[in-house]
Amino acid sequence: MNVLEQIAHRESIRSYDPARPVEPESLGRILEAGRLAPSAANRQPWEFIVVQSPEALARIRPCYSRPWFHDAPQILVVAGFRSQAWVRSDGYCALETDLTIAMDHMILAADHEGVATCWIAAFDARRLREALGLTADQEVFAITPLGYPPSGFIRTGMKQRKPLKEIVRFL
Amino acid sequence: MNVLEQIAHRESIRSYDPARPVEPESLGRILEAGRLAPSAANRQPWEFIVVQSPEALARIRPCYSRPWFHDAPQILVVAGFRSQAWVRSDGYCALETDLTIAMDHMILAADHEGVATCWIAAFDARRLREALGLTADQEVFAITPLGYPPSGFIRTGMKQRKPLKEIVRFL
Repeated sequence: MNVLEQIAHRESIRSYDPARPVEPESLGRILEAGRLAPSAANRQPWEFIVVQSPEALARIRPCYSRPWFHDAPQILVVAGFRSQAWVRSDGYCALETDLTIAMDHMILAADHEGVATCWIAAFDARRLREALGLTADQEVFAITPLGYPPSGFIRTGMKQRKPLKEIVRFL
Repeated sequence: MNVLEQIAHRESIRSYDPARPVEPESLGRILEAGRLAPSAANRQPWEFIVVQSPEALARIRPCYSRPWFHDAPQILVVAGFRSQAWVRSDGYCALETDLTIAMDHMILAADHEGVATCWIAAFDARRLREALGLTADQEVFAITPLGYPPSGFIRTGMKQRKPLKEIVRFL
């Protein structure tokens, strides 16, 4: 599958087999795709946290209280260090953009590996900070479960998106 | 090339043939990759602006005064509408993350199409707003040139990145 097909194929999966963590070789390739992401001034102001021990999963799950989220055998967190990120002369800090590129690379790489993901922004940010022991300098904008759907799971294969003519303008 | 290979292959290109705009079929596939991007609560709070007329290019080029940027035959701007974006209960607005996912999809799709790009955040935001006539509700976090390198251009094929062991933590 090429990248255009992968982008069309990726979808948010909300069903996970709790007994099946991601194959180590696949996880390595997913993390490598994030590692290679570009960032403003190449600062790479990130840490990729793979939450997988029963204790850490128990701490992080209450940050997003959906039953399917609690089934995920692993949760990937992209955390950033604000003090490491590039800042423009007008004060804009590129941290959120940098972290999103890395996460997007990993989400697409996961789909290539047959690994299910779901972009989550609606987590309880305060509880997440506590669960991960983040420092005042660290920020998280997105997390995703990692895993495989249970056998028999059927992807929707559907995307509801605005047509190009509504969102593209030529100047 | 699969998505892992595409991610490894993509690099920032700072050399453009001003006489060669992107083939229309390629441009269509690039924009389609952005259209399919996920966004918080599927709000799709974006507009993809392709700047290509001599008049519009002349207005936008002073926003980033590098000679190679001025050679690009087209410039892609991902602009967002803050009022359309999803907002979390603690006030966090997902606009920047949403726009970055769409731009990342288009940057990777462009590489697939043999189209050169370069993530740019260091533009003059005030001048860009004026050049594009953005409303108070609109925001831009990244722009990229679109085009082809001149004949004889050699890609670096290099990425300077931190090793995985410095950026990955298992919990």
